Amino acid sequence: MKGFVERYEKELLEHVMPFWVKYSNDKDYGGFLTCLDRDGTLFDTDKFMWLQGRQIWTLSMLYHQVEPKEIWREMAEQGSAFILKNGRNKHGDWYFSLDRAGRPLVQPYNIFSDCFASMGLGAIYKITGKDEHAQVAHDTFKRILNRRDNPKDQYNKSYPGTRSLKGFALPMILSNLSLELEHIVEVNTVESLIDEVIHEVMEVFYQPDTGLIMENVNIDGSFSDSFDGRLVNPGHIIEAMWFMMDLADRRGDDSLMAKCVDIALRALEFGWDDKYGGILYFKDILNKPMQQLEWDQKLWWVHLEALVCMAKGYAYTGDTRCKEWFEKLDAYAFGHFSDPEYGEWYGYLNRQGEPLLTLKGGKWKGCFHVPRALFKIYTTLKNNGKSVNDKRASIL
Amino acid sequence: MKGFVERYEKELLEHVMPFWVKYSNDKDYGGFLTCLDRDGTLFDTDKFMWLQGRQIWTLSMLYHQVEPKEIWREMAEQGSAFILKNGRNKHGDWYFSLDRAGRPLVQPYNIFSDCFASMGLGAIYKITGKDEHAQVAHDTFKRILNRRDNPKDQYNKSYPGTRSLKGFALPMILSNLSLELEHIVEVNTVESLIDEVIHEVMEVFYQPDTGLIMENVNIDGSFSDSFDGRLVNPGHIIEAMWFMMDLADRRGDDSLMAKCVDIALRALEFGWDDKYGGILYFKDILNKPMQQLEWDQKLWWVHLEALVCMAKGYAYTGDTRCKEWFEKLDAYAFGHFSDPEYGEWYGYLNRQGEPLLTLKGGKWKGCFHVPRALFKIYTTLKNNGKSVNDKRASIL
Repeated sequence: MKGFVERYEKELLEHVMPFWVKYSNDKDYGGFLTCLDRDGTLFDTDKFMWLQGRQIWTLSMLYHQVEPKEIWREMAEQGSAFILKNGRNKHGDWYFSLDRAGRPLVQPYNIFSDCFASMGLGAIYKITGKDEHAQVAHDTFKRILNRRDNPKDQYNKSYPGTRSLKGFALPMILSNLSLELEHIVEVNTVESLIDEVIHEVMEVFYQPDTGLIMENVNIDGSFSDSFDGRLVNPGHIIEAMWFMMDLADRRGDDSLMAKCVDIALRALEFGWDDKYGGILYFKDILNKPMQQLEWDQKLWWVHLEALVCMAKGYAYTGDTRCKEWFEKLDAYAFGHFSDPEYGEWYGYLNRQGEPLLTLKGGKWKGCFHVPRALFKIYTTLKNNGKSVNDKRASIL
Repeated sequence: MKGFVERYEKELLEHVMPFWVKYSNDKDYGGFLTCLDRDGTLFDTDKFMWLQGRQIWTLSMLYHQVEPKEIWREMAEQGSAFILKNGRNKHGDWYFSLDRAGRPLVQPYNIFSDCFASMGLGAIYKITGKDEHAQVAHDTFKRILNRRDNPKDQYNKSYPGTRSLKGFALPMILSNLSLELEHIVEVNTVESLIDEVIHEVMEVFYQPDTGLIMENVNIDGSFSDSFDGRLVNPGHIIEAMWFMMDLADRRGDDSLMAKCVDIALRALEFGWDDKYGGILYFKDILNKPMQQLEWDQKLWWVHLEALVCMAKGYAYTGDTRCKEWFEKLDAYAFGHFSDPEYGEWYGYLNRQGEPLLTLKGGKWKGCFHVPRALFKIYTTLKNNGKSVNDKRASIL
């Protein structure tokens, strides 16, 4: 797998990070401009908190783990200053979006904004050592834990009691966030969140009859025959599995590791589009019509997470099925998503594999999945899974 | 256009309404089952208030205007009984969805649920004369008017003041609803809502430089260079234009009529997909990347509303451009959406024109756009636009 190490490292350092450094650094107002068209042209100036926090994380992590490039640190610092100044309401909850100057546009309805703000600030603290970075990362994390039973609060549209479903995104992200903040939060909190997520994902959301993990289940873990209950998100399963592989490695649990590999391979087979190649965005477990009109599209993050997962699966276990899938995914991803001409990757392809949108960044795509995955892939392959210094991996 | 009259009448009476009569009538729990796969197979049992109200309207309108078929009346009556019993919270606001038995699933966050409940009850009142039908239609309408300045209430995620946009869907539907309830509400209310919608749509949302109507504008009517502000929904413009044509006819305003025809033709040219045919779902006025991943899909209602609009445009004005577009749309729609084998129409095609979902009904598609459009098209063509007995047409 040597050739892959070079390819992914070069893609990260020469074709992806330079794109964000060149086009996303808002020197006039602070923060990051993420709505960038194919060649880096700015097409919108709104600032989405998910992507602000994620970009702070990416820049800080690369500075810390790859190379202390001054521009990465500068950008992470000015981004942090921008979100600390403008990002929260009076309760300390993080807005969903701001305008270019930092005025709030959309209320804090989405707790993932808080998760990524905390994650970004936790990462930059490692390179700045500034109290404020640690403090706000810590306080935000505590507030997320307090809000976790009703994260949408007043914006929750479900009528209570008729059909109570739970999803695995929040337990996943909480355990990941606790690992990211291991230098800031109590060790007991981290270990209990890890225990919980392993149980929830591998026992409750996992369905032995299909070998897959559902997006939503009834509170008791049973299957809900409803639009939300039938939903399968192959990319999300696969992303969860590499995170679980890291936990299995951390705990030396070979049985958990083997189960992760099996589920990931099953999700890949289930999600792969035999007609046009690539992994479908959504499927219905009973093959019924879906409410997601974008179900047949090919999304960048799905393919990158699958590459990370197969690299880790191969490195941790030597399972050659992982190697074969890695090669197949690599060919699809570099053949369809990467853009040697302008850098960064396309985000959204139609089923046939053609760009559905020309953007490199937008409302939901920023400086995160591509660089994170490229970094994890080449370091994993270089170090053969063991002793990778990013073992405390991050998800979502 | 004689051949078209027969084709559309036959499609309605032999291929569309029999599908809904056979598969959607929930004799066990009341209300309508709308999640129906290609051949009528039930794939989900949730009941969406938009579609319950709309189906009551369709059945009642056809009973009143086409033929007093007993089954249509029976279904409209049992559907009304179901929504009157289960559909509202204690304030009289209409839930978004219920489970099969009528228990609330999703809160009243969407005021269009109330609009369609009121519209359905107003229509059935014409055939039942029952006080309760008129009363609840009336009270719901009044409550919609009271809520109109903040229709999403607590579920409104916009931060006040930073970027205040307004859309034209609510003024459109309010004026249409007032016409539907002309037998129930005060004439002054109706006329003032009509004045308002003509002004808003044709002066405020209409942009002379592009010849198009924007989905959202700043409060002062100016263009907002933002995701929402750049959005063009060609189908919505075209649907609005046939509604405006009916108002122009009602008021004998030839200048308004001519402007409606011009805008509709402009929207068709703008929205038409030169590569694969059909009308695109969304476009960005500045040709920037969009947030709607479904932008390139072909939706049933868009094409049906365009057929209604071109039929009316031709019937009212004799403009042969409308006739040509009607013929072009007819070929596309019957070639791609209709399904002679099982009846009803497909709802969602990919850009290439193949069914993206096999469903005939779901969360957003029920017994409404297809029958309403087929009815309006053949009656318009039969009566050559004048003296059509459905002149007080309905929108959305």
